[in-house]
Amino acid sequence: LIKEYEGEGEEHIPTLGIPDEEFSAVKKLITREEVRVISLAKLQLRHDMTLWDIGAGSGSISVEADHLLPNGRVFAVERNPQCLHFLRENLCKFNTRHVALVEGEAPDCLETLPDPDRVFIGGSGGNLWEILETVDGRLPAEGRVVVNAVTLDTLTAAIEFFENAGYELEVTTVNIARTHPLTDYKLFEAHNPVFVLSADKL
Amino acid sequence: LIKEYEGEGEEHIPTLGIPDEEFSAVKKLITREEVRVISLAKLQLRHDMTLWDIGAGSGSISVEADHLLPNGRVFAVERNPQCLHFLRENLCKFNTRHVALVEGEAPDCLETLPDPDRVFIGGSGGNLWEILETVDGRLPAEGRVVVNAVTLDTLTAAIEFFENAGYELEVTTVNIARTHPLTDYKLFEAHNPVFVLSADKL
Amino acid sequence: LIKEYEGEGEEHIPTLGIPDEEFSAVKKLITREEVRVISLAKLQLRHDMTLWDIGAGSGSISVEADHLLPNGRVFAVERNPQCLHFLRENLCKFNTRHVALVEGEAPDCLETLPDPDRVFIGGSGGNLWEILETVDGRLPAEGRVVVNAVTLDTLTAAIEFFENAGYELEVTTVNIARTHPLTDYKLFEAHNPVFVLSADKL
Amino acid sequence: LIKEYEGEGEEHIPTLGIPDEEFSAVKKLITREEVRVISLAKLQLRHDMTLWDIGAGSGSISVEADHLLPNGRVFAVERNPQCLHFLRENLCKFNTRHVALVEGEAPDCLETLPDPDRVFIGGSGGNLWEILETVDGRLPAEGRVVVNAVTLDTLTAAIEFFENAGYELEVTTVNIARTHPLTDYKLFEAHNPVFVLSADKL
Repeated sequence: LIKEYEGEGEEHIPTLGIPDEEFSAVKKLITREEVRVISLAKLQLRHDMTLWDIGAGSGSISVEADHLLPNGRVFAVERNPQCLHFLRENLCKFNTRHVALVEGEAPDCLETLPDPDRVFIGGSGGNLWEILETVDGRLPAEGRVVVNAVTLDTLTAAIEFFENAGYELEVTTVNIARTHPLTDYKLFEAHNPVFVLSADKL
Repeated sequence: LIKEYEGEGEEHIPTLGIPDEEFSAVKKLITREEVRVISLAKLQLRHDMTLWDIGAGSGSISVEADHLLPNGRVFAVERNPQCLHFLRENLCKFNTRHVALVEGEAPDCLETLPDPDRVFIGGSGGNLWEILETVDGRLPAEGRVVVNAVTLDTLTAAIEFFENAGYELEVTTVNIARTHPLTDYKLFEAHNPVFVLSADKL
Repeated sequence: LIKEYEGEGEEHIPTLGIPDEEFSAVKKLITREEVRVISLAKLQLRHDMTLWDIGAGSGSISVEADHLLPNGRVFAVERNPQCLHFLRENLCKFNTRHVALVEGEAPDCLETLPDPDRVFIGGSGGNLWEILETVDGRLPAEGRVVVNAVTLDTLTAAIEFFENAGYELEVTTVNIARTHPLTDYKLFEAHNPVFVLSADKL
Repeated sequence: LIKEYEGEGEEHIPTLGIPDEEFSAVKKLITREEVRVISLAKLQLRHDMTLWDIGAGSGSISVEADHLLPNGRVFAVERNPQCLHFLRENLCKFNTRHVALVEGEAPDCLETLPDPDRVFIGGSGGNLWEILETVDGRLPAEGRVVVNAVTLDTLTAAIEFFENAGYELEVTTVNIARTHPLTDYKLFEAHNPVFVLSADKL
């Protein structure tokens, strides 16, 4: 039995769609709100699943996934010291209940984790292929991997991996622009496009 | 105290991002998965809020909001008989707990509902201005309205209303395209763009 | 009889699609290559037409239109001294033949110009409505106006004007992102979206 | 010495941006106006160049390139009988002066053509790799190839080819939506996104 949302500070935190500026983060390195919720939707999380969040950055995916996995677990994997600093701050601020922080470099640090049902890869630090191989070895059938690609290289490498490994692949391109509510001059400002890959293991 | 996810069928329902094809719907009239979760994020729902879903259509917003409002309420307002048929089917299929169906034409049928904290307008059947006036009269300060505009007319009318009424307005343009996982020929297919307006009452 | 392309320097200038970096310009204020050619296409220029380029900026539209109007005329209207500096430089560099520079503030400075067949409005310096009224008074039936809107305010004001004035209006949204050929790290970088309005006088 | 635009019917043809509906074509198989002019811009045509238009379809690229190559040549290569029918009709209708029709299957039918300065590939009928190899063998240094990719497979294969062959590659994603001028209900309708690859031989 779970009673959610009892903390005081949490009263102002939405159950989905925490605004970007609420996260402590290296500016521009956060997965933007719109892409974040699309990625969460593509992960098709069910209440008791185990999620690996690889290249967790400032932790925005882990924090929001925590709400969506009331009986599950999230492992937030990150190696960059500056990101780790912000990640800790955010896990604390948003009072996550099911998120474990994993310091270290993927894929090595994945070895001791429990097998995932879902894997999110937001950043790969140059090890994408090795990470995907390790993920593939640990993911059960019907497991799903979601990758956010912002460069041509990540896009083509991830596609190649999933097609060779026999996954069922969907690619979604996301182009978002926003005006600012607080300026008079309402310019539409574009975010860089993100390719959200959703790959199902058969 | 809430025990979530006890039904059998529900085991396969994600806590966010139900695939479009899982909903009974008039084809092409459903708010697509990606736009749906962005709209939910923009609504900034908190656990015990009251949401009016005006022009609920097949109910995809209400169904997903139900998960995000464990202690709240959703009023799904719809007048079209065919949509109502699908809406009922979906509320039943997804076993929503906090969604009440309101048959009738907005804004008239809104009169007897409790005041909203959040309002989503997915369709207005030609009454957009009247609906916004009624919503404005009932929404408390710090309340928020989210409108999905797919036509130029809805876009400009909604902007005009919110600017005249002194709301803080953000407009997000969403351009999405997807490949199909099950075809060999992986064409990127575009959805029509949606303008997601988020307006805060001051 | 016209002999085109006789200069030496011009040998390396394409007949369409001059790269952004070839223009002297206030960085970020140039109409980007992709939006520029779409705007030129929407103008539906015929060989002997008269074009007003209002808010000509660094002149990229005028320079490219010059190639497309071998027997026509372009009036490049600009009031900003810094832009005028770059505009002069570009007209000289690209050796335009049919472009006249008009220093001054629109709509006042439009009075002495010959009537246009086509009008491009890239910037309006806060006088959009007055400019459109003047343009409407001078444009013959079957004339066409193309407006590039990057802000919500320009978009809604221009739509309102054209709908009230009985023009046939098309709005095209343009979302572009590009990788850089010369970097290893091929990030897709988005340009801000542009709304290209094409309005036909009946 | 060239005197352009002497025909009667041509008086109504713009020098750039012929509307899609002016072309005889298999519906939906035409390169849409906006993508067409971006592709032409990326080709960086100079007045006396030789262009191969491979998979010319209904010929919209060849027809517009004809205007941009007053002293050059276009070879429109197509194998599909239905497309050839429309292609002939369009070359005739638009009175092209420098376009030669090449019936047959690429890459075989390219053998007898003069070397190109520019190559556009709008469709490859499953032979993309072989076509690119042949093109690479015939294209001089500083030549440029532009490919329109609408599927994941064409996108990744073309990227792989150009990166292996040492070309300088830019990828532009183009997302366009349009309202219809003649309907009351101004819905933004999206075109499928196109990846425009521009590859320079070093």
